[in-house]
Amino acid sequence: MASSGSPEKHAGANEVSDRTAQVAARLKQIYKKYVYPVEKKYQYDFFFESPFLSDVEFDAKPQVLLVGQYSVGKTSFIRYLLGRDFPGQRIGPEPTTDRFTVLLNGPEERTIPGNALSVHPDLPFKGLERFGVNFLSRLEGSQLSSSVLRSVTLVDTPGILSGEKQRTNRGYDFTKVVAWFAEKADLIILLFDAHKLDISDELKGAIDVLKGHEDKIRCILNKADQIDRQQLMRVYGALLWSLGKTMSSPEVARVYVGSFWQEPLKSMDNAALFEMEERDLMKDLAVLPRQSAVRKINELVKRIRKVKTLAYIIGHLKSQMPTLMGKEKKQQKLIQDLPNVFRSILKKYNLAAGDFPEIQSFAAKLQEVKFQELAPLNQKYIDDLERVLTDEIPQLMSQLPSERDSPETLRNKMTSPENMPIPKAAGK
Amino acid sequence: MASSGSPEKHAGANEVSDRTAQVAARLKQIYKKYVYPVEKKYQYDFFFESPFLSDVEFDAKPQVLLVGQYSVGKTSFIRYLLGRDFPGQRIGPEPTTDRFTVLLNGPEERTIPGNALSVHPDLPFKGLERFGVNFLSRLEGSQLSSSVLRSVTLVDTPGILSGEKQRTNRGYDFTKVVAWFAEKADLIILLFDAHKLDISDELKGAIDVLKGHEDKIRCILNKADQIDRQQLMRVYGALLWSLGKTMSSPEVARVYVGSFWQEPLKSMDNAALFEMEERDLMKDLAVLPRQSAVRKINELVKRIRKVKTLAYIIGHLKSQMPTLMGKEKKQQKLIQDLPNVFRSILKKYNLAAGDFPEIQSFAAKLQEVKFQELAPLNQKYIDDLERVLTDEIPQLMSQLPSERDSPETLRNKMTSPENMPIPKAAGK
Ligand SMILES: Nc1ncnc2c1ncn2[C@@H]1O[C@H](COP(=O)(O)OP(=O)(O)OP(=O)(O)O)[C@@H](O)[C@H]1O
Ligand SMILES: Nc1ncnc2c1ncn2[C@@H]1O[C@H](COP(=O)(O)OP(=O)(O)OP(=O)(O)O)[C@@H](O)[C@H]1O
Ligand SMILES: [Mg+2]
Ligand SMILES: [Mg+2]
Repeated sequence: MASSGSPEKHAGANEVSDRTAQVAARLKQIYKKYVYPVEKKYQYDFFFESPFLSDVEFDAKPQVLLVGQYSVGKTSFIRYLLGRDFPGQRIGPEPTTDRFTVLLNGPEERTIPGNALSVHPDLPFKGLERFGVNFLSRLEGSQLSSSVLRSVTLVDTPGILSGEKQRTNRGYDFTKVVAWFAEKADLIILLFDAHKLDISDELKGAIDVLKGHEDKIRCILNKADQIDRQQLMRVYGALLWSLGKTMSSPEVARVYVGSFWQEPLKSMDNAALFEMEERDLMKDLAVLPRQSAVRKINELVKRIRKVKTLAYIIGHLKSQMPTLMGKEKKQQKLIQDLPNVFRSILKKYNLAAGDFPEIQSFAAKLQEVKFQELAPLNQKYIDDLERVLTDEIPQLMSQLPSERDSPETLRNKMTSPENMPIPKAAGK
Repeated sequence: MASSGSPEKHAGANEVSDRTAQVAARLKQIYKKYVYPVEKKYQYDFFFESPFLSDVEFDAKPQVLLVGQYSVGKTSFIRYLLGRDFPGQRIGPEPTTDRFTVLLNGPEERTIPGNALSVHPDLPFKGLERFGVNFLSRLEGSQLSSSVLRSVTLVDTPGILSGEKQRTNRGYDFTKVVAWFAEKADLIILLFDAHKLDISDELKGAIDVLKGHEDKIRCILNKADQIDRQQLMRVYGALLWSLGKTMSSPEVARVYVGSFWQEPLKSMDNAALFEMEERDLMKDLAVLPRQSAVRKINELVKRIRKVKTLAYIIGHLKSQMPTLMGKEKKQQKLIQDLPNVFRSILKKYNLAAGDFPEIQSFAAKLQEVKFQELAPLNQKYIDDLERVLTDEIPQLMSQLPSERDSPETLRNKMTSPENMPIPKAAGK
């Protein structure tokens, strides 16, 4: 491996994000060329109640959502990750960030108004209109050219306020908006301030908002260099204790301890620990592109298997129709006999039961169509899908950066010299 | 204050345990001379369903119970506290301690069989016979002369085994025995091994056993010098997370991190932290004698107020009885009118409602006695009790080592040079 800070290493990192981007692009091609036509032909969207996939679902970068009480250092953390200021950035000791800020990679440096963001066809933020104009005026894109943002999209949020203030002051439903982003996120980073931790209130608010997404949550106990080691143990313990009480998951929540900004540590007491923690966190971030690519592949594979099964079913029903008379009667008979129809198709084509549509609702949908108008089985379609599953997908998988290389490589990018203008050292 | 290790300091510490012992002795005197005669006269034991106090309730030292999985270092911790080996001590890497061991201060060094321990009139271990002869053969006293044991009684226990083994192997009900000791204990120390922590199982067993005594529990994460700092944070976090899930109390459990035996630390990484933790733990132990003395005083005060109230009630009932005829009728009338009787006594003597007996069961008890046989009010008794409350008790309180001095002073004893044969330093 290249030694620390060498140019090769950095090139390797960019190559990783390029390679995952290439995989995503190829997936999109496959979908458009081989899957979408079959879906269209056999009305997948109607029968499986699942809309056709749009470009953005392939192109979207993994999203990292930052959540926490005000002033815990969310915005500073992002600045630190990027290694530079970003358009619209505001950092300060009072509640500062007053809008949801989406950090995107792009050639020119600029902010993008919430309105524009929520209608942009290439970005996964459609649906945010539903939270109203008050909210859209508190939504902003921040575009800049950044190697980190080539891999992930970061979402900064206004600090959580305690209890009542939360609900009354904002003019939109903060909790629902965070829940919307949490749903889309690949990773949720929940920040706490070791220096002034009011756990009960703080945590309840945050965990309420993130309910159901516990598996995506990682915690940061920030500003940990501001207190002595014994205090840190107390605070850290108190946080874990409360997390244990609040979170429903059985696995221990991962809490990264450190000081995640560009300034030197206030004391070197825990410098070695903090460095290890930061390294681990960076790994967690670095695996996201690969993880998200793997997830996209898996979802497409599942979808293709269902599409194939649907093609067989529809083709079979079509083939059973008489040429001249008794069409209506035959259709009703087939619908009544659907369990047997499914069984025989499953056997004949060696399919999996899990890939079949739910039989009740499928039968209901069949009532709405005329079987003689259905498309006949087209072996070409099936052959193409088969080939995608057996050749193209495995090949794509092998093109992904390997699981073992990627964290290290990408971590190097995340903490490459360009991103760390001031090397960490003892302050004061 | 005397400087570290000076003889004065040590003398001061012994003085503290002497002073609390003196306070306990004086309490016992007061009880015997002024309280017990009144209790006897007005049948306190019968009316309040509370037996007369015995000497052991005044003399008993605060008890510290050690609980934990086998091999976590319970026995080694005791050895470390005492600064020396004790009779019957067994330390080893497999499940070693096979009996409940009560460590007592005494002039000669010897073990005391469980049978003898459980019938000893001066020791608070009566009641242990109920767990059967199998158990008594697994109970042992260990007597030695020790400044630590002048302040507290330590109870070592066999290691908790996982699940099934627990129930089947012992020949007595381990859980119930631990619960018995936990009930009597002033402090319960729950030990964990940082080096091999299998939390789920381990904790469930321990917490099940200690249910209802959460407020007395302190935890030790022992052998913490055997792992590196990041691992330690993980283990410590995982422990707090699980404690949060398992314990019902809202306050964070206190977990002392360190290596609590006489050997040098394996690495000096956390030496400063461990030392602070140990100091805090020693403070927790050092305040026990004072805490227990204060508790004894408070309990006696509560009791005296009740005794006084009872004397007034009984005296009043007696005074209402006719000299010649109609006694039975008058008694029934008084019992029926008990609420008004209570009210008028409360007013007349300026008593507190909380010091009155529960009215229903008191009325039932009155049915069992003959009012004409009750004792009349004796103002001398009341005056004595009054004087105890207003003069003697406040004076006793002032004789207790002050809250601010005592932890430091006593801690010094707990960690005085004589108790630390080998000074801690980096090993290997
Ligand atoms: N690691 C750190 N150590 C010490 N101070 C920090 C650290 N990170 C940020 N700060 C300081 O804390 C304050 C709040 O920082 P920042 O604005 O980034 O927090 P925030 O979580 O984004 O707050 P808000 O929710 O109000 O937007 C600022 O004064 C910043 O300089
Ligand atoms: N602080 C420590 N650091 C490292 N090793 C320790 C420490 N304390 C004890 N040990 C070792 O751990 C082993 C178990 O110790 P010990 O017998 O005191 O545990 P225990 O909890 O009393 O076990 P049991 O429940 O079986 O009686 C012994 O080999 C002992 O030397
Ligand atoms: Mg901010
Ligand atoms: Mg032992």
